[in-house]
Amino acid sequence: MTVDIRSFTLRADPYCDVINITDEVQSQIKKSEIKNGLVNVHVSGSTGAISTTEYEPGLVKTDIETFLEKIIPYKEDYAHHKTWGDHNGAGHLRSFLLGTSETFPVQNGKAILGTWQQIIYIENDEKSRTRTIYCTIIGE
Amino acid sequence: MTVDIRSFTLRADPYCDVINITDEVQSQIKKSEIKNGLVNVHVSGSTGAISTTEYEPGLVKTDIETFLEKIIPYKEDYAHHKTWGDHNGAGHLRSFLLGTSETFPVQNGKAILGTWQQIIYIENDEKSRTRTIYCTIIGE
Amino acid sequence: MTVDIRSFTLRADPYCDVINITDEVQSQIKKSEIKNGLVNVHVSGSTGAISTTEYEPGLVKTDIETFLEKIIPYKEDYAHHKTWGDHNGAGHLRSFLLGTSETFPVQNGKAILGTWQQIIYIENDEKSRTRTIYCTIIGE
Repeated sequence: MTVDIRSFTLRADPYCDVINITDEVQSQIKKSEIKNGLVNVHVSGSTGAISTTEYEPGLVKTDIETFLEKIIPYKEDYAHHKTWGDHNGAGHLRSFLLGTSETFPVQNGKAILGTWQQIIYIENDEKSRTRTIYCTIIGE
Repeated sequence: MTVDIRSFTLRADPYCDVINITDEVQSQIKKSEIKNGLVNVHVSGSTGAISTTEYEPGLVKTDIETFLEKIIPYKEDYAHHKTWGDHNGAGHLRSFLLGTSETFPVQNGKAILGTWQQIIYIENDEKSRTRTIYCTIIGE
Repeated sequence: MTVDIRSFTLRADPYCDVINITDEVQSQIKKSEIKNGLVNVHVSGSTGAISTTEYEPGLVKTDIETFLEKIIPYKEDYAHHKTWGDHNGAGHLRSFLLGTSETFPVQNGKAILGTWQQIIYIENDEKSRTRTIYCTIIGE
């Protein structure tokens, strides 16, 4: 039984960039040489998020953005903007809602996912960001 | 310290079937013989979800469905529908929002839950589905 | 490799009290003497929730409350209220949506978080509550 904390970086566009990180996560699991256990995928930061979806243009370029914009619009006048002069209140609320990590079972050296299920990073901030994604693999 | 990846299947009705899987998860933990650690409950698939609630008819037959239908209605014309000719854009968005796994502490061979807190599977797809639920137990 | 299930209690006000529990979680990790692995932060109960945000008054006193009240208002007539004569249907739906746990990587004896990212407890119930927060640390 062992633990391996690995990480990689990505560059994300502002306002709901959705990036498929499945291959990178699977590659980190492979490098850890852990065959069975769990992988926790985490972004450190309060305006990023981790989830899963079918990675096809309709969902990741349009539907996710339209849905999040409907319930947490970027242009609203959030109280957060008055605290620091920031303009990313919507980004904070989106990350609060979606969460900044997901945990998956690892079997035979791979994260278990559905056929159409991809691990995604969602950028909620209003500026381009370089993000560190942590893959913590625990198992044997 | 050991890891045990166990699974069971369930049959779910379309359009927001909410199934109480608490007993099945507790039973899988018992079979693992792990007394203290974590259990990750995961559905592989991009139109299922895992969460918790008080499992009583008002919440699981009406309130959850009404809430999800308000923010992500099934009848909307999602971009996803144009990609494959599918009609389950809402199902994908609901799973993206709710997440496909939850992780719980395990103490004395049982997942720690509140008195009224049950582990639930939520079916978001528009067809009946047979689903595999993974219970990954890590501990000693 | 070892596991340590630790807990602490907090007192929360009703209707969207948001409490910064980061220092308490970091303190529990330190007491466990585990240096590298994972920490699962969990509230047992179906009307509490765990997430992260930048802990500043605009977000935690106004924006989170306004957002949750918009999508899941407390004053609506939920079916849950008819089952037991309770009035906390909104509280249950908010916890169902946000989730009752989050899992973070632990490195050098600390949970990895962004500079502005704090771990928060959200009270969704309509009464003051004393809550037990579990910190399950697995690693070496």
